[in-house]
Amino acid sequence: MPYFDAASAAPLHPVARQALLAALDEGWADPARLHREGRRARLLLDAAREAAAEAVGCRPDELTFTSSGTRAVHSGISGALAGRRRVGRRLVVSAVEHSSVLHAAADHEDRGGTVARVPVERTGAVDAQTFGRALTEDTALACLQSASHEVGTEQPVAEAAGLCRAAGVPLLVDAAQSLAWGPATEGWSLLAGSAHKWGGPAGVGLLAVRKGVRFAPQGPADERESGRAPGFENLPAIVAAAASLRAVRAEADAEAVRLRALVDRIRARVPALVPDVEVVGDPVRRLPHLVTFSCLYVDGETLLGELDRAGFSVSSGSSCTSSTLTPSHVLKAMGVLSEGNVRVSLPRGTTDEDVDRFLEVLPGLVAGVREKLDAPAAAPSPAPDDSLVVDALGKRCPVPVIELAKVIGGVPVGATVTVLSDDEAARLDIPAWCAMREQEYVGEEPADRGAAYVVRRLS
Amino acid sequence: MPYFDAASAAPLHPVARQALLAALDEGWADPARLHREGRRARLLLDAAREAAAEAVGCRPDELTFTSSGTRAVHSGISGALAGRRRVGRRLVVSAVEHSSVLHAAADHEDRGGTVARVPVERTGAVDAQTFGRALTEDTALACLQSASHEVGTEQPVAEAAGLCRAAGVPLLVDAAQSLAWGPATEGWSLLAGSAHKWGGPAGVGLLAVRKGVRFAPQGPADERESGRAPGFENLPAIVAAAASLRAVRAEADAEAVRLRALVDRIRARVPALVPDVEVVGDPVRRLPHLVTFSCLYVDGETLLGELDRAGFSVSSGSSCTSSTLTPSHVLKAMGVLSEGNVRVSLPRGTTDEDVDRFLEVLPGLVAGVREKLDAPAAAPSPAPDDSLVVDALGKRCPVPVIELAKVIGGVPVGATVTVLSDDEAARLDIPAWCAMREQEYVGEEPADRGAAYVVRRLS
Repeated sequence: MPYFDAASAAPLHPVARQALLAALDEGWADPARLHREGRRARLLLDAAREAAAEAVGCRPDELTFTSSGTRAVHSGISGALAGRRRVGRRLVVSAVEHSSVLHAAADHEDRGGTVARVPVERTGAVDAQTFGRALTEDTALACLQSASHEVGTEQPVAEAAGLCRAAGVPLLVDAAQSLAWGPATEGWSLLAGSAHKWGGPAGVGLLAVRKGVRFAPQGPADERESGRAPGFENLPAIVAAAASLRAVRAEADAEAVRLRALVDRIRARVPALVPDVEVVGDPVRRLPHLVTFSCLYVDGETLLGELDRAGFSVSSGSSCTSSTLTPSHVLKAMGVLSEGNVRVSLPRGTTDEDVDRFLEVLPGLVAGVREKLDAPAAAPSPAPDDSLVVDALGKRCPVPVIELAKVIGGVPVGATVTVLSDDEAARLDIPAWCAMREQEYVGEEPADRGAAYVVRRLS
Repeated sequence: MPYFDAASAAPLHPVARQALLAALDEGWADPARLHREGRRARLLLDAAREAAAEAVGCRPDELTFTSSGTRAVHSGISGALAGRRRVGRRLVVSAVEHSSVLHAAADHEDRGGTVARVPVERTGAVDAQTFGRALTEDTALACLQSASHEVGTEQPVAEAAGLCRAAGVPLLVDAAQSLAWGPATEGWSLLAGSAHKWGGPAGVGLLAVRKGVRFAPQGPADERESGRAPGFENLPAIVAAAASLRAVRAEADAEAVRLRALVDRIRARVPALVPDVEVVGDPVRRLPHLVTFSCLYVDGETLLGELDRAGFSVSSGSSCTSSTLTPSHVLKAMGVLSEGNVRVSLPRGTTDEDVDRFLEVLPGLVAGVREKLDAPAAAPSPAPDDSLVVDALGKRCPVPVIELAKVIGGVPVGATVTVLSDDEAARLDIPAWCAMREQEYVGEEPADRGAAYVVRRLS
């Protein structure tokens, strides 16, 4: 049963399991104690820190273990902002950062700080120069991910780091998705990672802070982990995290080549096999194991359910698959289609056969979902009529787009279709559909309920 | 090799190990995902929450899993204070709370709040009426531990909870040391616990918040754990924590009787076997497995080292065994001797033989340490002389007390010995020595360096 959601959580690496078991026996005691059990725990903790620091590319005393990647990000951002409070209270982030970064940014705003969110290109990458221009004199911190957890696009971290250095602004790199593949690009001031993304256990994050970076941990004081991660160390899991990072790295180069070829196969074959698909993210500057595509006229949750029944576990940035009912902020920032969105992230060991079988079942499943939704299968047939208004109020993604597609053939070229919709995803998906179909997206007009999206038929 | 430091971290319960192993295979995926691995993880998480809630004595939707007991305390205090911000900014805590509570209180002060620290009696217990009187109209939250992690004394939680209810003040109970033995006394509004204290794995804390208690989580938002514990759930460890809490509870009553008898043996025998020992904490209203005593004229770190070499792992609240060089705030608040302090906390399964062997080796080890320090073995011999000044500047605990004891016999009854000391522990230990030796502690006078402690010879 192929599991294609490594970007959410990678299956536990065998070395992580082994190390965890050993450390349960040797490393359960308090490493702050002086007795032999405590000293043994301390030795394990020190060794894990050395191993992890080597893999990260920093000194052991620059690295602390946190309880999750999210905590590493939260503590890293709040500590760096507080350390540079005198410089200013501006935080610069890319618009496609992980929710932990964006939530920390929103919290900073709630406390009176300001946040600049740098937009991205259609590939999901920021333009380094645009990022650099956001680094004003009062900028306390900038955050840029190494690569997108959602579409796999790599960010221009080296260039951004150079501009940050020139501006005297520390750069926090969220390397959660890329640490399995290698150390982060040089130039970061703070770095965050998460063990369960590389096949380590849950409960372990990494926060590295370069010597010389001003850092003032926030919240109640605590003696553990240099005061940067309060609470009893999760030692067996830390040992397993460090051991598995080493193990994963030893296989990383070969595995990256293999998985990159499999992802290339998906990127090439899906649009050929499935009509009306948009593969998103940078095709070249990307993580080796991750690809995302969106299927027009498809309900993401239904498609995920069908794939699940067929044995494939994938993830989605469609609004209907998240608890917030808004589409992924990443797809939104990229301006790409969000409906029928599928993220495939291959764990180590994924076989050619797994991917081939996925490509075999996908077209039928997408067609089935479209049929159930009564989506237009071919180009709509023309009919003489004037401009039209479609009432899709109360209908969820992808229904508004399907309704639009069904009627646009019924208006003459040059006339418009106005879709009334109160579904947040429509704001993103109707313009995206227009781009895919080469119709003109005229714009959005206010309406009593929701909004009115105006589309002009061009062909 | 008997490990007598269960109060720092209990050895992993076999059920915790088993459950952890099983959950590593079944529960590594993201419980927020819709695919089968995610749903399986969600089922495990829900089951663990139900089991833990039953053991805690609350509803599953009142319970969240945090990454440590410390985090549970920090989040519980900050969330409850923020939830009642309009009522006032006063926080009431006992003076002997765990450092995580006191650090959260200090953080609250740093942010402009006020903190009342309720003193304790010589047993380590607060007087419930004194605690109640601290609950003013602008009190947002009160915190009282179920039992002391350091001396084992149980607090009058039921009485305190009644007074809190009458005053309309929510009560946070830190039940970290007592959850292994049973649910916390009724009446709490918030409750914190820590799995590695009951034989569960590291990396798991509990925060329970009763329905109806105003609570506003602080820090960046996060969808997991009702917004009260950000970051990917440490699921295998959570499963192990819940399973081991159940298992520990099934054995708790029988084990409590057995360990209570062993602790009673230590409480009775240590003062009989070792001269100049003060056994501290309430002899009856106490945790079953924990006893603390202090040995006059003994250096805590040296004694811990000797015990460690003899095979016994214990802990200490003496200043020389902590990284801060100040004696335990708990012993300080109780006003008892802190030098040569030993905390014995027995894990489940401790045998009679383990304890007997401890009682066998302890007297010789204490005598050895005293001999090395040239401590007075018997009552000091009198000599005709006037009042004396002893310069113990630059000398660490227990040297100042030893110097005092060596010379006091040399001054006539009614005359004084003034000890100059810049060791923080002397402030606590010289008065405690006076109480033990029935000499008069006159008081402390300012000095160029450190302080001058004046003692009058009475006998």
